[in-house]
Amino acid sequence: MRDFSQDHRWLSINTATVRKSRGVEVPLPDIIEACVKRGIRAISPWRDQVAAVGLSKVSKLVKAHGLELSGYCRGGMFTATDEAGLKAAHEDNRRAVDEAFELGAKCLVLVVGGLPGALQGKAAHKNIALARAQVDEGIERTLEYARAARMPLAIEPLHPMYAADRACVNTMEQALDICERLDPGRTGTIGVAVDVYHVWWDPRLEQQIARAGKLRLLAFHVCDWLTPTTDLLNDRGMMGDGVIDIRRIRGWVEAQGFEGYSEVEIFSTGNWWQREAGETLDTCIERHKTAV
Amino acid sequence: MRDFSQDHRWLSINTATVRKSRGVEVPLPDIIEACVKRGIRAISPWRDQVAAVGLSKVSKLVKAHGLELSGYCRGGMFTATDEAGLKAAHEDNRRAVDEAFELGAKCLVLVVGGLPGALQGKAAHKNIALARAQVDEGIERTLEYARAARMPLAIEPLHPMYAADRACVNTMEQALDICERLDPGRTGTIGVAVDVYHVWWDPRLEQQIARAGKLRLLAFHVCDWLTPTTDLLNDRGMMGDGVIDIRRIRGWVEAQGFEGYSEVEIFSTGNWWQREAGETLDTCIERHKTAV
Repeated sequence: MRDFSQDHRWLSINTATVRKSRGVEVPLPDIIEACVKRGIRAISPWRDQVAAVGLSKVSKLVKAHGLELSGYCRGGMFTATDEAGLKAAHEDNRRAVDEAFELGAKCLVLVVGGLPGALQGKAAHKNIALARAQVDEGIERTLEYARAARMPLAIEPLHPMYAADRACVNTMEQALDICERLDPGRTGTIGVAVDVYHVWWDPRLEQQIARAGKLRLLAFHVCDWLTPTTDLLNDRGMMGDGVIDIRRIRGWVEAQGFEGYSEVEIFSTGNWWQREAGETLDTCIERHKTAV
Repeated sequence: MRDFSQDHRWLSINTATVRKSRGVEVPLPDIIEACVKRGIRAISPWRDQVAAVGLSKVSKLVKAHGLELSGYCRGGMFTATDEAGLKAAHEDNRRAVDEAFELGAKCLVLVVGGLPGALQGKAAHKNIALARAQVDEGIERTLEYARAARMPLAIEPLHPMYAADRACVNTMEQALDICERLDPGRTGTIGVAVDVYHVWWDPRLEQQIARAGKLRLLAFHVCDWLTPTTDLLNDRGMMGDGVIDIRRIRGWVEAQGFEGYSEVEIFSTGNWWQREAGETLDTCIERHKTAV
């Protein structure tokens, strides 16, 4: 297992973590600058943050600084109520693949979607099996395009508390079943993003990480589960502040040969987004060494 | 599958559902009276509500009204940091078994506990595997006692969002693995409580309900998953107000021969606990017919 205690060369910052500084939105170039200043070598930006600045501008900035992208957030949201919706999702995912390629991302992270309409507060139906079937098909279609573009797709199983509105793929096992069906030869074109926040509770986690193996472990995300958690979406904790045995899980991932970045992804309306972004980044660096 | 549309003979009220009326605590005898008045034939009371009135008084009241108890809430909380804590948990579970027996409950529901201290906001450790081992052992010890008392134990897998602080048994599969180890002969002394709120998202749900079979399906709880859910514990929805396909799940349970009550268990600080308890009960009756 790699020793993270001496430096932060394997730290990546998911840019949502410092999306806000003292409650105010931070433009992506400022985030990049703050990361570079601290010797952070990798980021994982969100599409809306990239779009706000312009893809080519961000691409140039990233390349000028020699930054790596541990991933690109995000494709997915494959479910819909009609053909037009499914088609729109497919086209949007093609664009996401193109953007990820332009930025030189290691993978496009997929948050697959839940019951259509649920995220807007009114689910169009209650058939989660149907949503899962649409997700299967959506990933299959996107994979064809991503293969040609040589952009690996990383399915991110989301915590079951997001099954209704964000992602109906909720366990590593489910995600790996999809990988196996679409890519039995393990070509590296499709795999999983393991986010400890989503999967730490799973009694099958160690077993499924072993099942994934190096070729399907495309990304590793960290933050922490707080007790109590006061918001289902935006109360994620800094590594070390919660109950997840992050190092143990990293050990399982690295035992399979994973050699990539440990990407910090924290959504925190009440705490970290209220602090100065520099303080948040400094804390990420410190906790990367002591708690990851 | 039973037809619930014409009457509410298979409705049971978990007394937490009307724990408060217009925000004010309701004594258990008042809850019982309100249920009896409406022709509700079964309840499932909580230990604290029983203790506030006195066990023998509640027992007499229940028997005088010919009420059934679809379950008794709850035993469990098996995890601890030392021997004294484990012993205290064991003794408390023996008392819970005795109370359930005295009240004539169909089963004692077990919420098994999470990382010790987490519910109080500060977990003593992060080793969920250790907590799970303690739970295994705690159930085994309690089962010896419960067998002698002829009180079936119903392990309730809780939603993974409670893995840290309330229950580290989070899937039907996990609960059934424990049942299989402790009772390979399927004697009916140990099984599961299937609460749709906790398990609706599980891709293995149908399969695991079939695995459980009639002898291990000891209780069936209903409420609904709201989108958005604003609180991890106390924002459960009334059946029909959320995204769970309750009837489909009831179909799976009844296909195994389950013939028991459909128990409504809603924790709702912001909505149902603010309404008049009679209105909440009337709505339970209506939704039992139309949405369960």
